[in-house]
Amino acid sequence: MGSDSDLPILEKAMNTLASFGVPYEVHVYSAHRTPDEAIAFARGAAGAGFGVLIAAAGMAAHLAGVLAANTTLPVIGIPCKSQNLDGMDALLSTVQMPSGIPVATVAINGGVNAALLACQMLALSDDALAVRLREKRESDTRAVLEKDARISREYSR
Amino acid sequence: MGSDSDLPILEKAMNTLASFGVPYEVHVYSAHRTPDEAIAFARGAAGAGFGVLIAAAGMAAHLAGVLAANTTLPVIGIPCKSQNLDGMDALLSTVQMPSGIPVATVAINGGVNAALLACQMLALSDDALAVRLREKRESDTRAVLEKDARISREYSR
Amino acid sequence: MGSDSDLPILEKAMNTLASFGVPYEVHVYSAHRTPDEAIAFARGAAGAGFGVLIAAAGMAAHLAGVLAANTTLPVIGIPCKSQNLDGMDALLSTVQMPSGIPVATVAINGGVNAALLACQMLALSDDALAVRLREKRESDTRAVLEKDARISREYSR
Amino acid sequence: MGSDSDLPILEKAMNTLASFGVPYEVHVYSAHRTPDEAIAFARGAAGAGFGVLIAAAGMAAHLAGVLAANTTLPVIGIPCKSQNLDGMDALLSTVQMPSGIPVATVAINGGVNAALLACQMLALSDDALAVRLREKRESDTRAVLEKDARISREYSR
Amino acid sequence: MGSDSDLPILEKAMNTLASFGVPYEVHVYSAHRTPDEAIAFARGAAGAGFGVLIAAAGMAAHLAGVLAANTTLPVIGIPCKSQNLDGMDALLSTVQMPSGIPVATVAINGGVNAALLACQMLALSDDALAVRLREKRESDTRAVLEKDARISREYSR
Amino acid sequence: MGSDSDLPILEKAMNTLASFGVPYEVHVYSAHRTPDEAIAFARGAAGAGFGVLIAAAGMAAHLAGVLAANTTLPVIGIPCKSQNLDGMDALLSTVQMPSGIPVATVAINGGVNAALLACQMLALSDDALAVRLREKRESDTRAVLEKDARISREYSR
Amino acid sequence: MGSDSDLPILEKAMNTLASFGVPYEVHVYSAHRTPDEAIAFARGAAGAGFGVLIAAAGMAAHLAGVLAANTTLPVIGIPCKSQNLDGMDALLSTVQMPSGIPVATVAINGGVNAALLACQMLALSDDALAVRLREKRESDTRAVLEKDARISREYSR
Amino acid sequence: MGSDSDLPILEKAMNTLASFGVPYEVHVYSAHRTPDEAIAFARGAAGAGFGVLIAAAGMAAHLAGVLAANTTLPVIGIPCKSQNLDGMDALLSTVQMPSGIPVATVAINGGVNAALLACQMLALSDDALAVRLREKRESDTRAVLEKDARISREYSR
Repeated sequence: MGSDSDLPILEKAMNTLASFGVPYEVHVYSAHRTPDEAIAFARGAAGAGFGVLIAAAGMAAHLAGVLAANTTLPVIGIPCKSQNLDGMDALLSTVQMPSGIPVATVAINGGVNAALLACQMLALSDDALAVRLREKRESDTRAVLEKDARISREYSR
Repeated sequence: MGSDSDLPILEKAMNTLASFGVPYEVHVYSAHRTPDEAIAFARGAAGAGFGVLIAAAGMAAHLAGVLAANTTLPVIGIPCKSQNLDGMDALLSTVQMPSGIPVATVAINGGVNAALLACQMLALSDDALAVRLREKRESDTRAVLEKDARISREYSR
Repeated sequence: MGSDSDLPILEKAMNTLASFGVPYEVHVYSAHRTPDEAIAFARGAAGAGFGVLIAAAGMAAHLAGVLAANTTLPVIGIPCKSQNLDGMDALLSTVQMPSGIPVATVAINGGVNAALLACQMLALSDDALAVRLREKRESDTRAVLEKDARISREYSR
Repeated sequence: MGSDSDLPILEKAMNTLASFGVPYEVHVYSAHRTPDEAIAFARGAAGAGFGVLIAAAGMAAHLAGVLAANTTLPVIGIPCKSQNLDGMDALLSTVQMPSGIPVATVAINGGVNAALLACQMLALSDDALAVRLREKRESDTRAVLEKDARISREYSR
Repeated sequence: MGSDSDLPILEKAMNTLASFGVPYEVHVYSAHRTPDEAIAFARGAAGAGFGVLIAAAGMAAHLAGVLAANTTLPVIGIPCKSQNLDGMDALLSTVQMPSGIPVATVAINGGVNAALLACQMLALSDDALAVRLREKRESDTRAVLEKDARISREYSR
Repeated sequence: MGSDSDLPILEKAMNTLASFGVPYEVHVYSAHRTPDEAIAFARGAAGAGFGVLIAAAGMAAHLAGVLAANTTLPVIGIPCKSQNLDGMDALLSTVQMPSGIPVATVAINGGVNAALLACQMLALSDDALAVRLREKRESDTRAVLEKDARISREYSR
Repeated sequence: MGSDSDLPILEKAMNTLASFGVPYEVHVYSAHRTPDEAIAFARGAAGAGFGVLIAAAGMAAHLAGVLAANTTLPVIGIPCKSQNLDGMDALLSTVQMPSGIPVATVAINGGVNAALLACQMLALSDDALAVRLREKRESDTRAVLEKDARISREYSR
Repeated sequence: MGSDSDLPILEKAMNTLASFGVPYEVHVYSAHRTPDEAIAFARGAAGAGFGVLIAAAGMAAHLAGVLAANTTLPVIGIPCKSQNLDGMDALLSTVQMPSGIPVATVAINGGVNAALLACQMLALSDDALAVRLREKRESDTRAVLEKDARISREYSR
């Protein structure tokens, strides 16, 4: 994360990763205030055994781009809403990457989806994780159908 | 792709995939005009040996979301600019996915980056591909540095 | 509705339908988490005697589009405001449908108008309903005129 | 239409209506330059046997709203792109109607979809038209699948 | 005003008019729910001795346009912020009038400025009002300068 | 005008004023490059017998605001579209004036309407001009009705 | 500042300047309500020994432009968020200056960065200030790294 | 510049610098493709005798931020318009910098103003440059006044 104010968004991502049994390391690295550490982390990530990097940042959100420029591991960007502009600044700063350096961008404040997307990538070579993803999908579906049954009964006329 | 008018954007993606030696299958499936085929394709993709799906669509761009809702493989979305609103409609329709169903969104008309991102995902379990990605990155860097040398010499004063 | 968090907006629609004596069925179907059920419902809707479908969803709001792709009954879309972007994402995802699959889009969070629009469509072959719509319009007019009389008297000088 | 400059957009609507055998009357009525005629037309439309009104206008697009305020027939609005702002002004002026007076809004410049939506409404009490709508949907699907077959064969590798 | 919910914005306008001794009449007329009354008022306004009309409305704000279409008196439009889109919908619906029917648009929720602008128009043929406008401008200037003196003394270092 | 590149927009305004027999003076004054002249002109305008000022400017369009800050005559602002942002920058810079200093803003590039609005203001104390405005309105109406007759006959079926 | 309501944003700037030992003078000058004083201040600023001017204003934020038009000292603009449009109006009014009159624009409500930018400019000829800027940057870096250490330890798993 | 496609914008900056006799060095450094070189350049810039850095980049424009994060010299950012979104992505990515790392942002494609702003900063300790800036301002003023004289004579009536 680019700032510890983004922690609530990333806690959703962490909880999701934990629920799938995927280990993770959490860092506060600012593209602008700690560029050395952000770059060193990105460059060492593949060698250190990381599979996917997730970057959450707001405003002129450069963190995902900095990581992506310094690794060829997939980098997922979470644009974070800050006090003004409703997250549009972070969304455009994250998704509109120039040709050659992709960032896999999820929705504004999309912590859960960033974690799910990371799991989907890792599951390409982890069949057990792929199974857990499908089970989660099915349980999400059942949860909606249960709400449907209850609400349909209560409100239809 | 959601429409054959998106072909020029996807040709960039295809050329990039081909340059990395990654095989691909191309389809025109509309989320709205051929939902059955789009869904059947997504559901069968993992079994058919696909690793990553890339969806390009414009306007109320639902194709990436439809695919993502019907597979747990990672899905990459390319928002395509159409005649109005400069691609902002496709960007928001692609990236603002609800919790549970992520779409890895790249820049508007970002065909090359979609392909690179797919390669990065596949490279998590393909070391040779990972090497080619790093070589491509280095050659991109060299190309910029050559431009820098030429332009710096010609224009500085 | 795409999520039970949209219930308050749909309750306005339900109350409006009920006030016109129009029966309705309520469902929670997500375009992404329960695509099968959403599609099956849309495909069976004409045969089950439904006249109009109303879909309310937020963010990358695909529900109206999914229904519209699977029926030739008219589908009304309510873009719902969620936590970011003030509903603009849902509006563009709902209204910017590609040629061939229209969605009749109403204002952001426009539950009442969605119901009124459905009644207007049904009234094309239901004269009694048409009469009630005209009476409602007249009573709305009278309500404004009463406010005008009171406020004009109190504030003009 | 609010101005004869919108004619190309409406010609798409007319051609679509004609292809379904639905008769129509075309008018140039400006919400601002011919309010009397626009209002008189809307008030007389139900009595004159019209089923649905389609209004196309650009900029501060009030025509659909004026018609909707003067009839309880369903009114479809086509926001037209004009020289600036890419149609966003017309979209918001058309779709953000206040509670009580709905306008069924389609995409910017969405002439074909406006006509299809009108047919869907009329088909609620016209089974033959409903059949033609379903046939058109199926032929659209076949057209996409033919493109898919051709493009998939040509481009996949 | 288009709705009595706009009253707080118009009260600022009324207080400003009253402070200049300019008489006014207040009405709640909806472009959509009471079109007849709005139009009749606009058509009769010049004959009834009104000089300037001020219209405040939100969302797809058509009221100013309806008045302007039915009088050649100057019409001032106040775009009102409603629950979504921060007033941008009302601003574009008010200011982007087609050629031939101008609306003098002020800032979103700009009640005071609408009244001042009306006074400026009336002062073209009312020298005493022109004097009061200049005095108000001078007193506004003095108020800022007093704040400057106080804040400059307190905060500079 | 703030720059001679805005001349085509102002020529529409001039032609309109000329067609109503209203004399005018044209100036190129930049809020930023010739602030002294712009201010001096605004301060002297009432004494020199001007009734209304019209300012056309693009980008961070400050000209209308500068004039309005230095006169209590009504000031009309025309936001001009320049190379980027489709005129939205000029629109917001012109219309979002702070309380106390109104600018009567017309549509982006709205030269004709700026002139008509000026005529409407001047017509408050010029009955002959008021008559000409009403005649122009009627002739505009007739022009639309003639188009309607022709297009309705040619296209309806 | 253009209004004393912008004081909280400027207090951050003042505190930052004070922490670097840079003296400053604070004024409330409105581009519209006290143009004479704003212009006189800008014209006299270089002679009075000021090095950099910082202007904070909201809505159609002209203050920075007015100062910049009347001095060749560098002028920094802080776009302030006001009640509507999330500061986008002030941002565009501040940054989109025409060629010839630059304003160095910082983020919406960016009081701290405006002060830091001013210090950076002054440090071009003040080595001691340059040293303090580098020390501040290093201490900011350390603060992030301390957060990283704490959060990484607490949350990684 | 982040890409040699931005050269036309920077040529305007270069010509402006050259006209003031200010030497400059030109580089093509991409925040993402040549991060090492961009960072090394920024870190060495003060020692190498540079006074101000100007960065031009489009899309998710990170170059100015990368430079600013690696020097305490003032950094000027030029957001460049690229194929989509009219430069709004680059503007927000450049100006919305987090607290601690300012970027002095000029208008979209604002090459001339970036150079002028750099000159203004350098002129804080270069009286001869300050004189040339004032002379340029005066000659700009005269150019506008000459246009005014010509256009006023030709068009006023």
